[in-house]
Amino acid sequence: MDTRELILTEARKSFSENGYAATSLRGIARSAGVDVALVPYYFGNKRDLFVAAVEMPVKPAEAIAHAFAEGPEVAGARLVDTFVGIWEDPATGPAFVAMFRSAMTHDDARQALAEFASKEILGLYARGLGDIDPEEARLRAGLAASQLVGMVMLRHVMRIEPHASLTHEQVVALLGPTVQHYLTGDLGA
Amino acid sequence: MDTRELILTEARKSFSENGYAATSLRGIARSAGVDVALVPYYFGNKRDLFVAAVEMPVKPAEAIAHAFAEGPEVAGARLVDTFVGIWEDPATGPAFVAMFRSAMTHDDARQALAEFASKEILGLYARGLGDIDPEEARLRAGLAASQLVGMVMLRHVMRIEPHASLTHEQVVALLGPTVQHYLTGDLGA
Repeated sequence: MDTRELILTEARKSFSENGYAATSLRGIARSAGVDVALVPYYFGNKRDLFVAAVEMPVKPAEAIAHAFAEGPEVAGARLVDTFVGIWEDPATGPAFVAMFRSAMTHDDARQALAEFASKEILGLYARGLGDIDPEEARLRAGLAASQLVGMVMLRHVMRIEPHASLTHEQVVALLGPTVQHYLTGDLGA
Repeated sequence: MDTRELILTEARKSFSENGYAATSLRGIARSAGVDVALVPYYFGNKRDLFVAAVEMPVKPAEAIAHAFAEGPEVAGARLVDTFVGIWEDPATGPAFVAMFRSAMTHDDARQALAEFASKEILGLYARGLGDIDPEEARLRAGLAASQLVGMVMLRHVMRIEPHASLTHEQVVALLGPTVQHYLTGDLGA
């Protein structure tokens, strides 16, 4: 096994046994018996290592940055477009369904993914939303995520009609305003 | 095994092997070796039998009828209230999580639940929405369901914060307008 694979194996073990928060690059290097500098050399930061470890086929940081590239006021439809596109793509969708299923049934995988989503993905939304309270940003990000995940459940996991057969453009048109509302609208609560 | 249990066992087998649509009360009675009148006697119609077979702890027909009792214009918040209440209730929530997990991982359970949701639950929404095109009603119902299911995923399956700790009232206030929009608003698509 080469060094990269060795690190990945230990990373998967640590994420799944200890959860995302308690996993450190240093600890993984130690378990893998490699120099501590090699983990960031191969994988960057902890978030990217998790993405590699769960074989997430897309870097969430890049996808979210792309959605927010034109500013938060128009990120709603762009976020739906990006997210739905990833799940529709035969090169990336099935891996997400598998990851999701595994998180639904293995509590350690669920915990790692929940911590990852909570600490990292929601943080990226906060950055995209600009200078707002971090707690509010996490709330808004999670609301947007709830709508996106729910539609993915109907379309790609449960495959319920007519939603499984909606075109990409229809989904963007139907969900875009909702996600935009969650990102920048008056939540009234 | 008493007659009721015998019917339930055959019902579970048929729903899971043949799917919801292809399962008939007559076929179940035949497999169970009981008179065909006994299935409706114990379980009412096919929908109620499925609810009993998957040990669904709430009759969806009653919950949805309750949400629409004051008319479709105010059903949004009532629907969130009912749905979130069922998942929060320690007497009913865990059974739903289990049913959901099983549908995520067993393709026959997924298919039965998807058919059930598609044919029956979405039909009840259509009735609640009054005299509108059935296809439009199914679209609206599924959009509402996508938002409800997505929030349940965050709160009860993945347990992501801060959403897992939101109060019942906060969830109703945050999601009510979205669900109302899907039920009766201008979908613009």
